[in-house]
Amino acid sequence: MSVPIVSFVGSSGSGKTTLLEKVIRELVKRGYAVGVIKHDAHGFEIDHEGKDSWRHKHAGAGAVILCSPKKFAVIKDTRKAPDPSAIINSLLSDSDVVLTEGFKRHSFPKIEVLRKANSKKPVCLNDPNLLAMATDADIRTRKRLLRIDDFKGVVDLIEKDVIKKHKTRDVSLMVDGRIVPLKPFIEGMLKEALLGMTRSLKGCAKAKEIELRVKKR
Amino acid sequence: MSVPIVSFVGSSGSGKTTLLEKVIRELVKRGYAVGVIKHDAHGFEIDHEGKDSWRHKHAGAGAVILCSPKKFAVIKDTRKAPDPSAIINSLLSDSDVVLTEGFKRHSFPKIEVLRKANSKKPVCLNDPNLLAMATDADIRTRKRLLRIDDFKGVVDLIEKDVIKKHKTRDVSLMVDGRIVPLKPFIEGMLKEALLGMTRSLKGCAKAKEIELRVKKR
Repeated sequence: MSVPIVSFVGSSGSGKTTLLEKVIRELVKRGYAVGVIKHDAHGFEIDHEGKDSWRHKHAGAGAVILCSPKKFAVIKDTRKAPDPSAIINSLLSDSDVVLTEGFKRHSFPKIEVLRKANSKKPVCLNDPNLLAMATDADIRTRKRLLRIDDFKGVVDLIEKDVIKKHKTRDVSLMVDGRIVPLKPFIEGMLKEALLGMTRSLKGCAKAKEIELRVKKR
Repeated sequence: MSVPIVSFVGSSGSGKTTLLEKVIRELVKRGYAVGVIKHDAHGFEIDHEGKDSWRHKHAGAGAVILCSPKKFAVIKDTRKAPDPSAIINSLLSDSDVVLTEGFKRHSFPKIEVLRKANSKKPVCLNDPNLLAMATDADIRTRKRLLRIDDFKGVVDLIEKDVIKKHKTRDVSLMVDGRIVPLKPFIEGMLKEALLGMTRSLKGCAKAKEIELRVKKR
């Protein structure tokens, strides 16, 4: 994965969205390009009734995409919940950091939000990927604790433990929609082979980023 | 490009959206999975004020993605208008046919919509990619003419001249965001090389679809 990711988890109503909103604003203020993925098990409504995109979607299009010179939007039916890593790879690779809301079962570094008026029980306290809890409750743990409104502390932690520790990979291989982890030797071989093969093609001598897709029949 | 595309063009107010809506419904009725891309030079509004995704976008996130088990949505800022071929490749490759609205300067097969009460002058009559005009006006041309409300005729034409003539490609190569056209020899070489290189990786023996991305520093 070529973008650092941190996941905000916690029960519904814990204040994830409110904290995330402040964290996004602070990260942007510090100069980072931020991407967000929100997982919503209950579905969501977007788009406005009567608009062209709504009309096309409701006529039965499986996907509607809107493009303008400054903005780009997609509304797409899926048969299964999409894999966040694949989404980040194809749509958020230009972000400096990606924040996700939900996805508590994925192995992303996590910050749990817990508000005592809402819930007494942490959901990810024993997750080895938990970086910290942001909470107003009195929780006994060796994990790092932050005040639930301390968005600057959360951003300091993300900068130090997620963004700066992130090592960018030069090669990503996806097979049948799943990212395949690569050993350094294989990574180097695939990289040099593809660079070598495309270098002689017209207009590709100075290629910086190459994507090759192959379908087998 | 692995999906057949047809572009609906015409002046603003010509009735493209209305015709497209009927065409989508008819294609879906005939069993096709339809993707739509709409180009909007003037920008668009989507999302509802106050919703979580709206709050995150307005807090400064460059991209917000929503995932549910059945639906997936993206709202993303772009620095330049995205290339429709790249979008189709990454987001609409599971469609049987993609309809675009706008993109009159691209070399997709086209159907022009012209309503005489709205405009007298065709915009793409001399475009070699024009398949037909759907119009209520009396236009002198050797190109094929269809009634502006004849959505079944439009769908017959799309089935015959776009979907059935489309030859799927097994290999696509994108360099720095641009699709590179490949000669059959190069296509075959890239395909066999990548299949050969990944076959021995764990869990990849029966790979059907492979995507390799490489960044050069």
